[in-house]
Amino acid sequence: MEHAADPSHPRYRSLLMRHRLEVAAKKGMLADSALIAHGRGEAYDYLLGETTIPSADAATRIALNALMQAEHPVLSVNGNVVALAGDEILRLANKIGCPLEVNIFYRTPERMEALLNDLNERKERLGLDVDILGAEPDATIPGLKGPRAKCESKGILRADTILVPLEDGDRCEALVAMGKTVIVIDLNPLSRSSQRGSMTIVDELSRCLENMLEMPLEGLPSVESYNHHQTLQNALDTIVDGMKNKF
Amino acid sequence: MEHAADPSHPRYRSLLMRHRLEVAAKKGMLADSALIAHGRGEAYDYLLGETTIPSADAATRIALNALMQAEHPVLSVNGNVVALAGDEILRLANKIGCPLEVNIFYRTPERMEALLNDLNERKERLGLDVDILGAEPDATIPGLKGPRAKCESKGILRADTILVPLEDGDRCEALVAMGKTVIVIDLNPLSRSSQRGSMTIVDELSRCLENMLEMPLEGLPSVESYNHHQTLQNALDTIVDGMKNKF
Repeated sequence: MEHAADPSHPRYRSLLMRHRLEVAAKKGMLADSALIAHGRGEAYDYLLGETTIPSADAATRIALNALMQAEHPVLSVNGNVVALAGDEILRLANKIGCPLEVNIFYRTPERMEALLNDLNERKERLGLDVDILGAEPDATIPGLKGPRAKCESKGILRADTILVPLEDGDRCEALVAMGKTVIVIDLNPLSRSSQRGSMTIVDELSRCLENMLEMPLEGLPSVESYNHHQTLQNALDTIVDGMKNKF
Repeated sequence: MEHAADPSHPRYRSLLMRHRLEVAAKKGMLADSALIAHGRGEAYDYLLGETTIPSADAATRIALNALMQAEHPVLSVNGNVVALAGDEILRLANKIGCPLEVNIFYRTPERMEALLNDLNERKERLGLDVDILGAEPDATIPGLKGPRAKCESKGILRADTILVPLEDGDRCEALVAMGKTVIVIDLNPLSRSSQRGSMTIVDELSRCLENMLEMPLEGLPSVESYNHHQTLQNALDTIVDGMKNKF
């Protein structure tokens, strides 16, 4: 795969993300469907103009506030999240002061080990003090079957507010059904996760996390100010505006 | 990757295409970027309702007429085309009575051999008499650099009308610049290939080819009746209609 090393290249960021996925795939961190899922995301990001739209920025601020105010916030990460923004998600956990839990759909011991190793290496390199959970699941998410239900009691199970970037629709729904505040990051405003989450940030993952890392914690908008349908419709309207009378 | 064997499963076709890609990847037929490209296509197909929209059906009929009327029609195929619809593209070449040429962006001897072997196996199994070109390139497409420019003089070079499903924008433009009628099949109405092609069918590849195979050759609409901008705008309008006042 091509890799543009020059940040001024118009496709630099897109090629960088592909490069990160390629590296992760070689380390055994990804499921077969990971690249296809990423391609779907690329399509929606292209339609959004590959930029953080104002309604996503607003949702990001509110979501950060919700995570800061939570009693037991947790960041749930899967293969694509670690691959695309491993450093950024660790830094966010450090900023919020919460654990991060590896929670993957196609759970195998090999993939779990590859992901935990990668995260622990990043954590050491960054010199961060973050709890990385997922290695010792002792609980299950009600309503899910098989290995994909596994989680830790001190992580996802007891969380009141959980960030689930790039999450599968079934699991998103199961977490909502547990009564948690589920914050979704997803480029497709029509996906089941986007629709069923408590809050949805329609933005590219690494861009969203970089925004969260830069945001000062003072003066964030109240959690009550979040309007779910308006946030999603704004994303759709942005896409629609780019398609009207194009030809 | 999941594979739904039951054709009544709502995701049957989508899972079948993923399964075909998985098989092709194992045979070394695909570039690293193939799955990401497929994911982008999935996103657009989802937005189109995973159906052949009327403007795509009209474009398909006109395109088939253009191929039938051409003096030297050629079907250009890459890794994803062989993976997703190898049988169908061979049957179409047989129906039109034209050669098929393997022409790939990331050209390596290994991938070329894997693709040519796969096509020749299919051809034998289907009992078809189709010229499969690409193994002995003796010409280049002007304006392209390196191995991606290679083609055969009795195939792509002399073609007056060429079908390029899932084609890269640079190569599509280079073929148009040669004065050929370039027929694109692409799910993204905004892609460079879609915009720069002479005719564009905004449809999923295997669906489009199955449609072409079923179409009687009598009574096809005239090539002159094709309206490029209207065809692309209709596809965008279909996507837009699905996004209005959704929430």
